[in-house]
Amino acid sequence: MSTVADYPRQRRTGAARFLPLLGWLPESNRRTLRADAVAGLTVGVMLIPQSLAYATLAGLPPAAGLYASIVPLVVYALLGSSGTLAVGPVAVVSMMTAAALAPLADGDPTRYAALAALLALLVGAIQVAMGVFRLGAAVTFLSHPVLTGFITASAVLIVVGQVPSLLGLDASGSGPLPEALSAVAGALSTVSGPTVAVSAVAVAVLLVLKRVAPRVPGALVVVVALTAASAALGLDQRGVAVLGEVPTGLPAPALPAVTLREAASLLPAALAIALVGYTEGVAVAKSLGSRSGQRVSPDGELVAVGAANASAGLFGGLPVAGGFARSAVSFSAGARTPLSSLVSAAVVALTALVLTPLVTALPMAVLAVTIVVAVAGLVDWRGMVSTWRTRRVDGLALAVTLLTTLLLGVEAGISAGVVFSLAVLLWRSSRPHTAELGRVPGTGVFRNLARYDGLETDPEVAVVRVDAPMVFANAERVSDTLRDLVERRPRTRAVVLDASAIGDCDCDGAHALGGLRRELGERGITLRLATVRGPVRDLLARDGVWRELVAAGHVHPDTASAVAAAQGRAPVGGPAPGVL
Amino acid sequence: MSTVADYPRQRRTGAARFLPLLGWLPESNRRTLRADAVAGLTVGVMLIPQSLAYATLAGLPPAAGLYASIVPLVVYALLGSSGTLAVGPVAVVSMMTAAALAPLADGDPTRYAALAALLALLVGAIQVAMGVFRLGAAVTFLSHPVLTGFITASAVLIVVGQVPSLLGLDASGSGPLPEALSAVAGALSTVSGPTVAVSAVAVAVLLVLKRVAPRVPGALVVVVALTAASAALGLDQRGVAVLGEVPTGLPAPALPAVTLREAASLLPAALAIALVGYTEGVAVAKSLGSRSGQRVSPDGELVAVGAANASAGLFGGLPVAGGFARSAVSFSAGARTPLSSLVSAAVVALTALVLTPLVTALPMAVLAVTIVVAVAGLVDWRGMVSTWRTRRVDGLALAVTLLTTLLLGVEAGISAGVVFSLAVLLWRSSRPHTAELGRVPGTGVFRNLARYDGLETDPEVAVVRVDAPMVFANAERVSDTLRDLVERRPRTRAVVLDASAIGDCDCDGAHALGGLRRELGERGITLRLATVRGPVRDLLARDGVWRELVAAGHVHPDTASAVAAAQGRAPVGGPAPGVL
Repeated sequence: MSTVADYPRQRRTGAARFLPLLGWLPESNRRTLRADAVAGLTVGVMLIPQSLAYATLAGLPPAAGLYASIVPLVVYALLGSSGTLAVGPVAVVSMMTAAALAPLADGDPTRYAALAALLALLVGAIQVAMGVFRLGAAVTFLSHPVLTGFITASAVLIVVGQVPSLLGLDASGSGPLPEALSAVAGALSTVSGPTVAVSAVAVAVLLVLKRVAPRVPGALVVVVALTAASAALGLDQRGVAVLGEVPTGLPAPALPAVTLREAASLLPAALAIALVGYTEGVAVAKSLGSRSGQRVSPDGELVAVGAANASAGLFGGLPVAGGFARSAVSFSAGARTPLSSLVSAAVVALTALVLTPLVTALPMAVLAVTIVVAVAGLVDWRGMVSTWRTRRVDGLALAVTLLTTLLLGVEAGISAGVVFSLAVLLWRSSRPHTAELGRVPGTGVFRNLARYDGLETDPEVAVVRVDAPMVFANAERVSDTLRDLVERRPRTRAVVLDASAIGDCDCDGAHALGGLRRELGERGITLRLATVRGPVRDLLARDGVWRELVAAGHVHPDTASAVAAAQGRAPVGGPAPGVL
Repeated sequence: MSTVADYPRQRRTGAARFLPLLGWLPESNRRTLRADAVAGLTVGVMLIPQSLAYATLAGLPPAAGLYASIVPLVVYALLGSSGTLAVGPVAVVSMMTAAALAPLADGDPTRYAALAALLALLVGAIQVAMGVFRLGAAVTFLSHPVLTGFITASAVLIVVGQVPSLLGLDASGSGPLPEALSAVAGALSTVSGPTVAVSAVAVAVLLVLKRVAPRVPGALVVVVALTAASAALGLDQRGVAVLGEVPTGLPAPALPAVTLREAASLLPAALAIALVGYTEGVAVAKSLGSRSGQRVSPDGELVAVGAANASAGLFGGLPVAGGFARSAVSFSAGARTPLSSLVSAAVVALTALVLTPLVTALPMAVLAVTIVVAVAGLVDWRGMVSTWRTRRVDGLALAVTLLTTLLLGVEAGISAGVVFSLAVLLWRSSRPHTAELGRVPGTGVFRNLARYDGLETDPEVAVVRVDAPMVFANAERVSDTLRDLVERRPRTRAVVLDASAIGDCDCDGAHALGGLRRELGERGITLRLATVRGPVRDLLARDGVWRELVAAGHVHPDTASAVAAAQGRAPVGGPAPGVL
């Protein structure tokens, strides 16, 4: 088993700031090069069937998948900050690509390929721009529950989309669930016996191999064996759809021939793919990075994956991302640095140059099986249940994303999830948690009266803690809470506001505090502030409230001193230490 | 000077919960009735010229303003929770009404009036619905800086819009600033000498009266005097535009004859007016309420003002709101309960029934002068400067709203302001303030190292405080901050997270904490949590992280005990009190 010490750290000084690969090379040695070669070979062998499969999933000729697994991997190796992330075509992004392009291409394959390349370019441009402007943090607005719901729904849509290929139906299973299901159901009479047989054999072989020889690349074995069988038996003559000719060689770089209007109409899809592709990839990279000790830079990853996408666009490929399963394989095969990606790219390039004539007879059903098996692993049942149990509103965000994606499609699903979770964030910040506090007897410690028994309270001194930033979205509500508190406690002569959990404040928050102080003052009640955090203090000082409070002696380093001052005595255990 | 004791409190039990006026009546006595009568009379006299003026500002016949000042005032008196708020046509809302209706009415006055009534109905429906669903708090998403920017820009647009009336130009000055200014500039050659003279006299009289007799209702005096002069001199024959016939009598209630499509196209404007009208009104009511000791219920006010708007729609009026200047007059004239509104309504009703024939000769320039003088008071220079000084980003929100309103119009301005301030809220919650802490020597108190000198630190124990809820929008960033901290302190063996300012947590926050704990653990560093707030604890418990933390003994009631445990000794001053 490898330990953190086996993994080189990327140097990030000098020329390596512009070409991160230069930060990896000085750290490489014979041991890491060997490990990278083995891992790169393993991933490369896995990439060949997946590239073909995900290209067909995206609605493109299989060769586009190979192209997307060569130059983009080289580009990622040059720029990436993760030693183990495996970039290439991935199922969810390919499905999103198909959903974006189908309505635009009018069934013209040349136009479709040009649009796919354009989409990859747009995704790349968006990601690079976000990285350059250091917006990596903004991308975290895609929460885990939303991502889980989206990926689960995508897996379902992908599986349904493969049913025609698995059964040899004369139908398309793509699009939102209702249309896809009815299309599949309507075509069930066109089922092809030999195709079903091929699918069944492929599934059986994959399952058996996974059980008896888990280290063997099952997908590749199935592809090789069933392609040979298909060629030998002439299955394409018996109603089994096969891959057909795949051109040999590598494409020259070219800008896709498209109009500005087409670019504009693809922008929303590009944004969604940029977001999903990056978020999934960076989550994988970070989780592997925490095990290898290699730090992943979010903004750097945006630039690296974005450049990989842009190169995929230039070389006739399709949008790419860091894949979950493939990166896990890369990690457990021992990848140490991005050099492993170079090895994978070489493997795929060799295939494209030499081996493509051999895959002509590959049955489409076999690719469909590899897709279904791969995406089945994306459904995170435990994550869904635990999200629902942990926080109902997060479970709701997951459900909203899941259902919207299934019923209305991928872009609607992503938008619904993001909008829902942002709305929840705003809603929660407008209704902050507040607690009335009481003293643990004999101490200077104050706790929530609603949670602890046996606390001391003073009918003349109310102590309250507000657990949120005090900003325009909640300032009025916080004031109302404090007013209600005073109404409920008619003998109150002082209100102590424990500000320890108020992490931020804006003009509305300052006005509200000033207004409350005046209002309570007119009723003979003093407002005292305790444990005010630095940024809040600065803002109150600029607003002018702070000066009034300090002049009146109504600011205290902690709650105990504030209560003592309100009671006109020294705090338990002497005056509190430190100045304000 | 009145004191809080002079102001009755509204009873809120029994039948008064459904008809709030019943909660005021038992608290009234001869003294409050007298005060209400005087204040109601004062406001009523002020309302007559303002109603005529604001109706023309809204592009409606003057009578609509009178109608909007009768039944809506009665409705507000029945339902309102503020004893001093004066409801009626207000300048900003009238200008928003004109901006919303002008593009739809095609210059047809009947259609225009029907659309204005429909708009009032929609505004009322939106406000009542928000009140019934207790969304009063949601309305606070309109921050003070945004409101200040919007009202200031509105005042400028209103003043420019009155220039044609003031100078007798043959042009419209309505709409965004560039169009309005070029329309006014292009028509400067059509200036009317007699109109300018009337305007100048009106301004002079108003200024002199304000100086020598501030308690005299200047607008009314100017209106009466200059109407008499206009009739005597036959000014309408000399190129001075006059009000013309105002129908006598009161309208019967009627639903406006409009289509569903028209209603749908007015919805955005109705939403903006509902928001602005209510926010301004409730701010006035609360500020007066804090002086009179009368509690204002936000949801109750929404219902009351909403019902007033709906009645304005049924009785051929225009959208209304609680006015700033008028409420201040009502307050200083001694209003005690909403009964004062009934008196004002009676004064306006009497005018509509009897006095309208007398105002035919009223010069439009005089109304324009009263409008300009009224809105000049809405520009809050000091508020703008202090907002900019207090918090740069709030000043930016103000500037964005101000400029967008001036250049693109009122709805764009409100939308830009709301979107900008919500974006700032999200942006700030994605980049929370964090502080590394040190101990005040000889105590258990920890303070921000960046702000205080002479604090003790332990190279093996890092203490850090996060000043924000830990949610999907910032969880990754917080984790990164803690990782950076550990990188910077290579000898660190324990990280103590002071969670006192973490007021909320979601699934992503819990995952991040769990992941960080594992990641640090693999590097031999323990993560300890101190002062975890109740709601956060509950969530961590449901997620499962809490159990692991408690089992490992890594949860502490306060920072001092956590640090002591990390150092393997008892905390200064004995173990911390209280259980967790």
